[in-house]
Amino acid sequence: MAILMDVAALEAFFATAFPQMNAGGQHYTITSVAENTATIRLDPDHRHLRPGDTVSGPTLFALADFAAYAVILAHIGPVALAVTTNMTINFLRKPALGPILGTAQILKLGKRLAVIDIAVTSGEALVAQATATYSIPPR
Amino acid sequence: MAILMDVAALEAFFATAFPQMNAGGQHYTITSVAENTATIRLDPDHRHLRPGDTVSGPTLFALADFAAYAVILAHIGPVALAVTTNMTINFLRKPALGPILGTAQILKLGKRLAVIDIAVTSGEALVAQATATYSIPPR
Amino acid sequence: MAILMDVAALEAFFATAFPQMNAGGQHYTITSVAENTATIRLDPDHRHLRPGDTVSGPTLFALADFAAYAVILAHIGPVALAVTTNMTINFLRKPALGPILGTAQILKLGKRLAVIDIAVTSGEALVAQATATYSIPPR
Amino acid sequence: MAILMDVAALEAFFATAFPQMNAGGQHYTITSVAENTATIRLDPDHRHLRPGDTVSGPTLFALADFAAYAVILAHIGPVALAVTTNMTINFLRKPALGPILGTAQILKLGKRLAVIDIAVTSGEALVAQATATYSIPPR
Repeated sequence: MAILMDVAALEAFFATAFPQMNAGGQHYTITSVAENTATIRLDPDHRHLRPGDTVSGPTLFALADFAAYAVILAHIGPVALAVTTNMTINFLRKPALGPILGTAQILKLGKRLAVIDIAVTSGEALVAQATATYSIPPR
Repeated sequence: MAILMDVAALEAFFATAFPQMNAGGQHYTITSVAENTATIRLDPDHRHLRPGDTVSGPTLFALADFAAYAVILAHIGPVALAVTTNMTINFLRKPALGPILGTAQILKLGKRLAVIDIAVTSGEALVAQATATYSIPPR
Repeated sequence: MAILMDVAALEAFFATAFPQMNAGGQHYTITSVAENTATIRLDPDHRHLRPGDTVSGPTLFALADFAAYAVILAHIGPVALAVTTNMTINFLRKPALGPILGTAQILKLGKRLAVIDIAVTSGEALVAQATATYSIPPR
Repeated sequence: MAILMDVAALEAFFATAFPQMNAGGQHYTITSVAENTATIRLDPDHRHLRPGDTVSGPTLFALADFAAYAVILAHIGPVALAVTTNMTINFLRKPALGPILGTAQILKLGKRLAVIDIAVTSGEALVAQATATYSIPPR
């Protein structure tokens, strides 16, 4: 599949469509886009942390959701409005302090549904794994 | 099962353990606790919103997670440290503007695992449904 | 919503479309259909059992899937071909010997997607809970 | 992690503990076990099929469950009784006629919980993806 939006195009789209994403600082950065995959890096600050300096579950969920959304838009373009219909997330290990990566991979990109696998990693460790379904509007 | 923490005890616990929850304003309020169930109300502000004035998926996820955590602590007390190991959330409808309720119900509260069902409602509408598993430390 | 297929119509449809369902004996019986809900009873035999006389996970999954499918067809009629796209199932307790009920409830029945909650019970006990998404073909 | 049970040991264990697995013919065959992974092949017969000669959802679920169970036992040995507590499965494409592989990979193998990712493939195609949680008894 062709890449319809590159990193710069996605960054520009997210800045307009989801200004809350980086309100108060550059926390989420799209780091790469390639066929069937996209990666977003989160640089957490105190708002994302739980006691013990661990990143909160909802923050990891948000990172997974952004990464999945990015890989879909990269392949269908900015005109489409995909909506998350379902996400399952497994929390595996506590992330270490420092940046966290969400790497999304397309399992299926159909006319109506996309299914995306997301690996959330901290250093070498897999800290969470998620699978998400998105509804794709008629194109 | 006996209720070991009432609304006031849970509010005090969350204020200490999760100060981020209501940083910048009182957004999450525990409204009721009873046998096997607890409800949290979210009064969203601009930080929780997406374009179209809809509440973001990660915000609904956070509400579901808080409600599930509240009902577990209500029944096992504040000393236990439960950890979310898995959550599946289905996004069903766009919430209307206004408060959103997360109502958690215990499906199972075992020695090692708790499974909780959470209904997220906006007015009369069910906007999301989630099922979560928590790991319960040895007591 | 109107009920487009009653118990007899569903039984006839399943007998034709899914003859494997009751190959070798009447194991699955649709017991009731009403607005937004349908119930199927499983009378397990040795093929459904695991050591310890417990019903196998795949058998509970199949019961949940049948019940969800039944409630959808009851409301959209036999012409539509719904396909399971996603199911999450939580196994909560070991079922007792004897019949097992799968009770499906519609959480959402949209034009393109249906989301169904299924409670699997054995006597008074909730033994499994599932949530399933079905893709609905254009009508 | 060391492999505590190889293919032959797993086959012998399953034949004793789950005789239903291959009742009526050799349908499930463990084809490989290695660090963090195991693969089971299903050779479907008419009992596993749906109209259109496609393999049923519950059959794919059972394959995923067996593969996950095999990779856990391979790493913790036959004495442990692991129980599936949760499985999420996404059905992506209709499988072609012929053998289907379930390849399980360990995401986490903790003292109390294991989380396993399972890819279900038919030829070159990914037909389903599942994530399962197992409760591990105290060792």
